[in-house]
Amino acid sequence: MLGNCLENVRKNVPLVHNITNYVTVNDVANVLLACGGSPIMSDEPEDVEDITSICGSLNINIGTLNQSSIKGMFLAGKKANELNHPVLLDPVGAGASALRTNTAVKLMDEIKFTIIRGNISEIKTLAIGSNTTKGVDADVADAVTEANLDAAVKFVKDFAKKANAVIAVTGAIDLVSDSEKCYVIRNGRPEMSKITGTGCQLSGLIPAFAVANPDNKLEAVAAAVSMMGAAGEIGWSRMQDGDGNSTYRNRIIDAIFNMNGETLNKYAKFEVK
Amino acid sequence: MLGNCLENVRKNVPLVHNITNYVTVNDVANVLLACGGSPIMSDEPEDVEDITSICGSLNINIGTLNQSSIKGMFLAGKKANELNHPVLLDPVGAGASALRTNTAVKLMDEIKFTIIRGNISEIKTLAIGSNTTKGVDADVADAVTEANLDAAVKFVKDFAKKANAVIAVTGAIDLVSDSEKCYVIRNGRPEMSKITGTGCQLSGLIPAFAVANPDNKLEAVAAAVSMMGAAGEIGWSRMQDGDGNSTYRNRIIDAIFNMNGETLNKYAKFEVK
Amino acid sequence: MLGNCLENVRKNVPLVHNITNYVTVNDVANVLLACGGSPIMSDEPEDVEDITSICGSLNINIGTLNQSSIKGMFLAGKKANELNHPVLLDPVGAGASALRTNTAVKLMDEIKFTIIRGNISEIKTLAIGSNTTKGVDADVADAVTEANLDAAVKFVKDFAKKANAVIAVTGAIDLVSDSEKCYVIRNGRPEMSKITGTGCQLSGLIPAFAVANPDNKLEAVAAAVSMMGAAGEIGWSRMQDGDGNSTYRNRIIDAIFNMNGETLNKYAKFEVK
Repeated sequence: MLGNCLENVRKNVPLVHNITNYVTVNDVANVLLACGGSPIMSDEPEDVEDITSICGSLNINIGTLNQSSIKGMFLAGKKANELNHPVLLDPVGAGASALRTNTAVKLMDEIKFTIIRGNISEIKTLAIGSNTTKGVDADVADAVTEANLDAAVKFVKDFAKKANAVIAVTGAIDLVSDSEKCYVIRNGRPEMSKITGTGCQLSGLIPAFAVANPDNKLEAVAAAVSMMGAAGEIGWSRMQDGDGNSTYRNRIIDAIFNMNGETLNKYAKFEVK
Repeated sequence: MLGNCLENVRKNVPLVHNITNYVTVNDVANVLLACGGSPIMSDEPEDVEDITSICGSLNINIGTLNQSSIKGMFLAGKKANELNHPVLLDPVGAGASALRTNTAVKLMDEIKFTIIRGNISEIKTLAIGSNTTKGVDADVADAVTEANLDAAVKFVKDFAKKANAVIAVTGAIDLVSDSEKCYVIRNGRPEMSKITGTGCQLSGLIPAFAVANPDNKLEAVAAAVSMMGAAGEIGWSRMQDGDGNSTYRNRIIDAIFNMNGETLNKYAKFEVK
Repeated sequence: MLGNCLENVRKNVPLVHNITNYVTVNDVANVLLACGGSPIMSDEPEDVEDITSICGSLNINIGTLNQSSIKGMFLAGKKANELNHPVLLDPVGAGASALRTNTAVKLMDEIKFTIIRGNISEIKTLAIGSNTTKGVDADVADAVTEANLDAAVKFVKDFAKKANAVIAVTGAIDLVSDSEKCYVIRNGRPEMSKITGTGCQLSGLIPAFAVANPDNKLEAVAAAVSMMGAAGEIGWSRMQDGDGNSTYRNRIIDAIFNMNGETLNKYAKFEVK
């Protein structure tokens, strides 16, 4: 059950190394604390290998990449691979600039990622651009809907197989697949897109779930994705007249702070395809 | 009417490229989402031209400038000029350090800014320092008050003419001028100065307003300035016993999230000189 | 009385130069504004000396250090020493990586720090690693408790003497010593550790207190430490059903915004050893 995965995070208090963007980094840190994990941020090449070594997992997010942090991403990723830590890639903006696309593709070539999380457009960019994913049919629409769900599930499964990673495509409907199975998750609210960084927050949470549930990575990722959406629903239910996206941001993290396995199981809306 | 300018932002969902400081960047992103725009942050020189190219306007804020981001500012600004995108300069701390003053002046020399927004002290520094503004009489006081209003209006008009830009001087009284006309705006609350980044937030909002109101840039800038002040008033009216500047920050962004053209028109307090 | 120290901050409105990490920087800025100070952030080597020169004190926090900001820390620190400004070191993560440990130790070798603030583990790392602290017995436990309090007080006093600085060790029990006296402070709540950056916030506050209370630095630091804990207690008392760490963060800063000397004196729980 997904709730168990959260309970395991709270028991393990996993330390997560985040190389993430400076836009949403504070929320990533607070959401990791909210779910029972512990965050460390470091992107300096001379620093990252030591920091990765004392952590249990690694989150690489290219949202505000620069020449120095890119070096840090490669060094940290390789060290995490040596140590068999779960490593997540969040290819923010892949497809929006050559540097982002090329960096994400090169990271995939040189580092073994355990999980890749992005929106459908970013994931499609990787599927087309990455050498490891030749032959994946990325001819799916730019939003996962009930109408194109089967094609999207097939795409995510295929890409998961070629990339040898758990793929999480998040949007109105979230898809999480390890190539064999695909969780189709229907949690969350459309208003979450009016807050910066709910995706980045999820990318910080997933490595905590992965390291705390080592024998069940697919379910662990699905639990994190479902929990983020459930928090969006709970947070929205607490909104009052006059509240807006800034308060909503706080309420979502608050909801994760108060979430337990039972609540997550109650809210989780998913099917496995 | 100013309210129309906001409605146009909500209709257009303008994508704004922000090269801004890491202190207030999260609030800049959330306030842009609150008003109906969409933010992207990128300061890496190798990345900025691509990102500017997919956006409609550009916000350059020198608040935590470094050697790399300075290069990014010049590259992005020139690309935005090529593409005829509105470009805003927020010369944070011009006058406080040689690097800030020189960078702001050099940016003005090499890039055509559509809008320059700062406090009176920063704008005076630019008026004195910039080659394009020789002959502007910057002998105005360091705060715009009812007592020195006429002199301040004349200064802003003169500088707008020489800089060939819309100038927005914000403070207790806000002045927005394109050299011909000057909006004198009396929205806002003094407690806004107890929150970091209301100025930076406004500098993120203005390019969204400028690109969504291409035929009416002066009014568009005035609308953004008035809206920020109105949000400060609405947000303050929702403060409860024990609340302070951190909650006030959320309530201001929330107020923008809930603002529509009608509300803005109701709250807007301005005269045109 | 500690409350006077806060009143002096509100009277003086001290400008604090912060070279701090990008994770918690926004909260550091807002908490400084909340207590009546004024923050400036700058880490670019070419910029920091000018910025330090217009400020009254300096906060150096190595939380997300990089090669450029490390240069900035040395330049700003030396300039602040020249100008006799209070300078604080927050050795975030000292002991967690060689770069962090070595940078903190080298900063201590080359810069005269007025105050060093960290958790017990970071401070022990400095006591062992720093040339200026040879002979300090750092064989204390990794948490200050009632059971090991005397040993911890002795350690902090010894280190304060060798480092010739006020040392603030924060945790469940806080210790603040100038070698002669040691404030043992029992404010705060355990839930504060579920928010990122309460330590960083305190490191921003302390230089404001130090510069506004030049003849009484030990008490000034103790006042800032006690105030942060008191704000944690007041903030927690305002939490409502469903609130979590994100709202708690806001309420703590709000509590500082509303704190005056009388409230601080009422809440302060300390003894001097």
